[in-house]
Amino acid sequence: MRKLILFMNMSLDGYVAGPGGDIMAFHNGGDDFEAFSAEGSNQVDAILLGHTTYEMMKAYWPTPEAAASSPEIARFMNERPKYAVSHQPFEPGWQHVTVISGDDVIGDIRKLKTQPGQNIMIFGSNNLCASLVAAGVLDELQIMLNPFVFGGGTSLFEGLCNKMDFRLVNTQQFPSGNLLLSYVPK
Amino acid sequence: MRKLILFMNMSLDGYVAGPGGDIMAFHNGGDDFEAFSAEGSNQVDAILLGHTTYEMMKAYWPTPEAAASSPEIARFMNERPKYAVSHQPFEPGWQHVTVISGDDVIGDIRKLKTQPGQNIMIFGSNNLCASLVAAGVLDELQIMLNPFVFGGGTSLFEGLCNKMDFRLVNTQQFPSGNLLLSYVPK
Repeated sequence: MRKLILFMNMSLDGYVAGPGGDIMAFHNGGDDFEAFSAEGSNQVDAILLGHTTYEMMKAYWPTPEAAASSPEIARFMNERPKYAVSHQPFEPGWQHVTVISGDDVIGDIRKLKTQPGQNIMIFGSNNLCASLVAAGVLDELQIMLNPFVFGGGTSLFEGLCNKMDFRLVNTQQFPSGNLLLSYVPK
Repeated sequence: MRKLILFMNMSLDGYVAGPGGDIMAFHNGGDDFEAFSAEGSNQVDAILLGHTTYEMMKAYWPTPEAAASSPEIARFMNERPKYAVSHQPFEPGWQHVTVISGDDVIGDIRKLKTQPGQNIMIFGSNNLCASLVAAGVLDELQIMLNPFVFGGGTSLFEGLCNKMDFRLVNTQQFPSGNLLLSYVPK
């Protein structure tokens, strides 16, 4: 079965976005790429996104700036199948997108995992991930721990109500001081 | 000058205590000891604690249970000079304790750092640490990242209002899946 893998930037104080939703502070460039070439080791061929994250990605990855600064990621993001989760159906406005907006989003994502293909990666999409981790649908958590504290913001899996245990399976350190920590549910 | 080093347990979602102040979930036993034998490498000879943490430590470390289960740490905690920070003076009720409760706690701690001696370690004491890190008095941050999410609680340095950058200087992995991450302010 395909694995569902989350890639999430996080500050040292556990925030996936800073005050006012700030995500620009995360050290994204080279580090993300290296983590992402994870594409190889993770064998990812599809992308799952919450609606808010989808709109941010859609606004950036099809642009000439994205193609110039991160050509491989841009190609990946533009060309691979994308699944955007939303409370309401919407017009995706980007290529290779399926909108998931039914009554049983978790069930739809479970079905997606049983379809033929490689692994599925989620980027950010904290609200969606809180639901997925609570439902036991998330198979791996890749946290890019950035070396700063925000002092406030949106905590990882905010809204999750229960303690959940994970097993650390890998660590990778980047020159920036970012740490990529891989966990699986226990 | 003596360095002021924080040792803090933290969940994967950045909480130094879970809902209702839960700190029992942290994997403390063997891991803490190994990190603590840090005493060697960190050359620590004094302990600084916020009042709440002080009271918890005082309730445990002098007991026969503590002496039986963690004799080396118990000896260290009981015999080394301890500095307890409080808004109001109070009767310490434990040996080798100085209460710091004046108008200029940060200044008092700065002075402590200039006195002869080895390094000073703070355990927990999140409120105090938020003030110390904001004032630039904290020299090193040792985060014991536990492999679980709490889903809520008290975030690291809660109340700190500004983004602050750190430099990752060391990582150490324990068999439990705990990671000891050492950072210095940038």
